[in-house]
Amino acid sequence: MSTTLDGAQAAGTVIGVDLGGTRLKAGRVEASGQIAERTVVSVGERRTEDAIVALIAETAQALDPEGLAPIGIAVAGVIEAATATVRESPNFPAWKDFRLADRILSATGRHVHLENDANAAIFGEAQAGAGRGAPSCIGLTLGTGVGGALVLGGELWRGERGMAGELGHMTVVPEGRPCGCGNRGCLERYAGALGIAETMRAAADPGADWREAAEDRDGAVAWLAGEAARGRPEAVDVFEGVGRALGQAIAGLVHALDVRRVVLTGGVSRAFPHFAPAMEAEVSARMFRSMREGVVITPGTLGDDAALVGASVLARRRAGG
Amino acid sequence: MSTTLDGAQAAGTVIGVDLGGTRLKAGRVEASGQIAERTVVSVGERRTEDAIVALIAETAQALDPEGLAPIGIAVAGVIEAATATVRESPNFPAWKDFRLADRILSATGRHVHLENDANAAIFGEAQAGAGRGAPSCIGLTLGTGVGGALVLGGELWRGERGMAGELGHMTVVPEGRPCGCGNRGCLERYAGALGIAETMRAAADPGADWREAAEDRDGAVAWLAGEAARGRPEAVDVFEGVGRALGQAIAGLVHALDVRRVVLTGGVSRAFPHFAPAMEAEVSARMFRSMREGVVITPGTLGDDAALVGASVLARRRAGG
Repeated sequence: MSTTLDGAQAAGTVIGVDLGGTRLKAGRVEASGQIAERTVVSVGERRTEDAIVALIAETAQALDPEGLAPIGIAVAGVIEAATATVRESPNFPAWKDFRLADRILSATGRHVHLENDANAAIFGEAQAGAGRGAPSCIGLTLGTGVGGALVLGGELWRGERGMAGELGHMTVVPEGRPCGCGNRGCLERYAGALGIAETMRAAADPGADWREAAEDRDGAVAWLAGEAARGRPEAVDVFEGVGRALGQAIAGLVHALDVRRVVLTGGVSRAFPHFAPAMEAEVSARMFRSMREGVVITPGTLGDDAALVGASVLARRRAGG
Repeated sequence: MSTTLDGAQAAGTVIGVDLGGTRLKAGRVEASGQIAERTVVSVGERRTEDAIVALIAETAQALDPEGLAPIGIAVAGVIEAATATVRESPNFPAWKDFRLADRILSATGRHVHLENDANAAIFGEAQAGAGRGAPSCIGLTLGTGVGGALVLGGELWRGERGMAGELGHMTVVPEGRPCGCGNRGCLERYAGALGIAETMRAAADPGADWREAAEDRDGAVAWLAGEAARGRPEAVDVFEGVGRALGQAIAGLVHALDVRRVVLTGGVSRAFPHFAPAMEAEVSARMFRSMREGVVITPGTLGDDAALVGASVLARRRAGG
């Protein structure tokens, strides 16, 4: 036993951190992917590079007081995983080429793996959630917009510049709705929460409750799912459109990649039962039967823990555990 | 020096074979990717498994009489590269789970790498042609239909079942032309030679010469390129449509994969100057500017030798050269 091979490390314990714009979630994660202990702290005014290094160091120390367990950190933004640098982050606009891992290693002696949050969440699902056991995984994050990530042969495919996985900006309607990316008819304009609310507003008026719900940016999809569950035809129609858009995009991705496991995460994925039938039918209608066979499309199972767990698995791998 | 480390192998010489339905093309390929000597033989009636093994053995012996240079073989069909088995081939319908590499190793002592022909052609372009020097490459084969292959981080991505790269069956027109794969609006129905001839037949009638050319399955696209070169507006319009379909599909693939080199091969790619402007404009209109930057879309440079060269590079790699 050496001082660095303490109990925590020998057991493969690592710290997973999901650093959001308002709060930091962290957990001590076992080799099984189970979170043994967790903590959530408010980021508040602690937004400078120095303050974040201190916050992560304190949090790791609290979760693993005796050891030097490595830390996996998920952050939104343009991340260069190889050098563990935050090139830019929408939540921390003052950061610029922040070498977060080097700084934490210097401050704590702990090794760090840094990953984009969407990549980390899908990797978590692929390794310890809905994709467990599958060699590869296509992940779509259905949130306000739509993001994604690709796990190919057990590894994240990050692309040449770390920008791979912009699956929400594949075109599904060539002359469709304008998108902030410059394109028209992007998947996210039909299957993200903002796009679904727009579909609701474009529907032939089904009443005042509908109009009001369509203006509720954060609650529209959950409300709509409730209406669909009660069989309201206009709500059922909206989710059919969501399913068709997703099915078309997924069919194209599976034709390109021959990956059989597709995992859907994010808030909109909670409406899975409502859009799944149209999605499955669209995938079947748009694919070679031989390639469609065996394709499983499933909601994620890790919920809000996915990015934390994924970052921890990446940190464990980097540590050779 | 051992008997297996003869001059040819020490110099990294390998044999590349492109086995088509009517003829077998083969070449002795140097480590640079240059073809030092080539041969073409008619397959004719020699279509049984035994006859093909004998034909390949003779051809390799003629190109490399003294040595045991490994052989890379490209064949159309469902190929299991890991076990070098032809599961099925459209050109040789009597074959079934033909373990071609094992048979040739037994007959000749030469090691064999077997690859699907579209994969081999794009890999050849990626390693020794238009993609040389690029870490990754998206390849589209614009022939009668449209196929493709993906080279990610220097390796062919074959998918979970060896079926990846069906890029011609990504949807570009959601309610578009029916396709043999079961889908509607597949890329190949707009950018493959058969699809282009259909676009010609659907055009408001521009004359008897046009109508006749549109019925010439093998010559329609070359004829149309000649007309576009002379500035005939209807021909220019058809190629604009080809370019837009390709651009939409390429934008989606680059958003998904963040790969910056795209290589177009096959007969239709000879009309590159006619469809490239619309294709480039479509890619720019449909992508995040930061991801679009640095994306180079280029015709292949190896022509009909691409599959032969690609198979040879795969064989050299497998031999550790």
